[in-house]
Amino acid sequence: GKAYKVAVLPGDGIGPEVMAEALKVLDAIEKRYDVTFERTHANVGGAGIDLEGRALPETTVNICKSSDAILFGSVGGPKWETLPPDEQPERGALLPLRKIFGLYANLRPAIIFPSLTSASSLKEEVISGGFDILVIRELTGGIYFSQPKGIEGEGRDRIGVDTMRYSVPEIERIAHVAFQAAQKRGRKVCSIDKANVLSTSVLWREIVIGVAKQYPDVELSHMYVDNAAMQLVRWPKQFDVILCENMFGDILSDEAAMLTGSLGMLPSASLAEGTFGMYEPSGGSAPDIAGQGIANPIAQILSAGMMLRYSFGMVEAADAIDKAVAKVLDGGYRTRDIYQNKEGEKLVNTREIGDAIIAAL
Amino acid sequence: GKAYKVAVLPGDGIGPEVMAEALKVLDAIEKRYDVTFERTHANVGGAGIDLEGRALPETTVNICKSSDAILFGSVGGPKWETLPPDEQPERGALLPLRKIFGLYANLRPAIIFPSLTSASSLKEEVISGGFDILVIRELTGGIYFSQPKGIEGEGRDRIGVDTMRYSVPEIERIAHVAFQAAQKRGRKVCSIDKANVLSTSVLWREIVIGVAKQYPDVELSHMYVDNAAMQLVRWPKQFDVILCENMFGDILSDEAAMLTGSLGMLPSASLAEGTFGMYEPSGGSAPDIAGQGIANPIAQILSAGMMLRYSFGMVEAADAIDKAVAKVLDGGYRTRDIYQNKEGEKLVNTREIGDAIIAAL
Ligand SMILES: CC(C)[C@H](C(=O)O)[C@@H](O)C(=O)O
Ligand SMILES: CC(C)[C@H](C(=O)O)[C@@H](O)C(=O)O
Repeated sequence: GKAYKVAVLPGDGIGPEVMAEALKVLDAIEKRYDVTFERTHANVGGAGIDLEGRALPETTVNICKSSDAILFGSVGGPKWETLPPDEQPERGALLPLRKIFGLYANLRPAIIFPSLTSASSLKEEVISGGFDILVIRELTGGIYFSQPKGIEGEGRDRIGVDTMRYSVPEIERIAHVAFQAAQKRGRKVCSIDKANVLSTSVLWREIVIGVAKQYPDVELSHMYVDNAAMQLVRWPKQFDVILCENMFGDILSDEAAMLTGSLGMLPSASLAEGTFGMYEPSGGSAPDIAGQGIANPIAQILSAGMMLRYSFGMVEAADAIDKAVAKVLDGGYRTRDIYQNKEGEKLVNTREIGDAIIAAL
Repeated sequence: GKAYKVAVLPGDGIGPEVMAEALKVLDAIEKRYDVTFERTHANVGGAGIDLEGRALPETTVNICKSSDAILFGSVGGPKWETLPPDEQPERGALLPLRKIFGLYANLRPAIIFPSLTSASSLKEEVISGGFDILVIRELTGGIYFSQPKGIEGEGRDRIGVDTMRYSVPEIERIAHVAFQAAQKRGRKVCSIDKANVLSTSVLWREIVIGVAKQYPDVELSHMYVDNAAMQLVRWPKQFDVILCENMFGDILSDEAAMLTGSLGMLPSASLAEGTFGMYEPSGGSAPDIAGQGIANPIAQILSAGMMLRYSFGMVEAADAIDKAVAKVLDGGYRTRDIYQNKEGEKLVNTREIGDAIIAAL
């Protein structure tokens, strides 16, 4: 059978607890499919700082380099919030990982689970029947990484500078990801920009229109980012795939995720060219409930599923995980964050919902 | 009595219709208070392009220069959408107006009118009792106006570039506007940035913290822009004044406005140092319903109210306009956009609701 190397980076807060459940799911997949996941654990985030002096220790980078994919938990917590921004767990680990591994394509599904519609802050009539948006965010360019960036001058003469820069190939490759994803879904791409103000957006729009010609079966539309922030609230069902540059994608993917009301349930993938990728829950490290065994591991489990789908080409196994999660939710299993005290609901802890998902596999 | 010069720029779409009602309200104010508003009409936006060859004709700029304030309608429409971005009505008129007149402080209230809560796409429990957010957006700096900006190179080697730049005085003056506004309201400022990624945000946060020391009665908090996009959806009532740089303010003010469900009801002010300002509805030119006499003039009327408050210091008259609008809404008057076919509602047209507001003054 095949063997894949997985770098396991649980991180901080609830990271280790929810990661344990995702690893149990990988065990179950190994038993059902002819495959082995060779896992190597490594420190990241606050755990990296505490144990090895930095958010992304070199040993961790090396373990990732000799792996086929990274399964990432979550990082951050009050303990490390007073460090300089560069050294903090989130920024100090995530940005270098994206850059080192060329993780240019961030896929963030924002899905309403039909059994959880009432957790959304949107009205029933706006979300009835659910919605299913895939935000595709460019992740290694734009204002996050371009130079010059810094604070020039002294005292009251200081000037802060950031630069947003996009090249044609950078735009093309992320556009291809969006159109190919759309072909497997609702066949619609809405490209977000601010072409009435930004030069990067003028180029972005032109290149996206060019790439679209290769995908005549996909419908392309364009929307200004400010309008998109409104339309997501007004009528999220109008969207299928949303394509964004880095900063707009950061903002809109979080807005879309929150609209589902299921933030703790949403996985994400950050893909490099080829098959390498990093997979992590969209929610945070939730330090307030860490160590109590009550966190919701579903986002971490679905992230492992995305790893099977995108890095290992195991579409069937990935589908099986998605279905098992849906089945367990339909069966009424609820961790505390999604428990609403309704008829048919069973309040369970992290381990119990993990076991239920494995049983449903 | 006093006399103020007002440049009246109705613009396109519903602009002229709703402006007519706002001018009627100014007539009514002249009769009740010892004041004269000397109005000069000028072309802007598509009307500027059609009649004088550009979105912001020089005659219009000169009329604005010899005025004490600008009352702006709205610009844009399908007719001019194929022009180059620079020449289009919105961008070609708004950005130069902001720059020429130094309109650095954009005040955008996002208020739920108690009688209109059901128009919001948020759940009743999330908005019950309404909310009242004031977004204060820096309007003449950041990535909108900084250099270099453009597309360099040829063909596939092209690179799009935009620059986000902020100086200490630019941050200080907008921070003062936010703290002073908060003192007259809920005494809370939430400053938005992306200090974990942007150098401009690191400087922004430091300077805002410094300015806050002069306002010990105002509580300052900080929030990353991605989190703010989520928190607005999750629990908008947590906010009082939201302070943003230009681009983040563009996105979040639109999101907040849409959350109210009353987009057609929201005014805005763009202020220069001193008393000069430009006042305009937050919604667009709504070309689809233009010319039918059914548009909602309330945002335009409230914009005129903001002009009295901020440029002319006529607080009492401004309060009277706000109260008259609230009274008319409580009385059940509804233009088509806010009509919900409920008991006690009276469907009226643009002119009728304008008349009702004047009667209520
Ligand atoms: C932690 C931060 C640097 C990061 C980002 O802005 O990309 C985070 O918000 C995300 O979306 O993964
Ligand atoms: C038309 C556009 C240039 C403008 C902006 O981005 O500032 C608009 O969206 C606004 O918010 O007034």
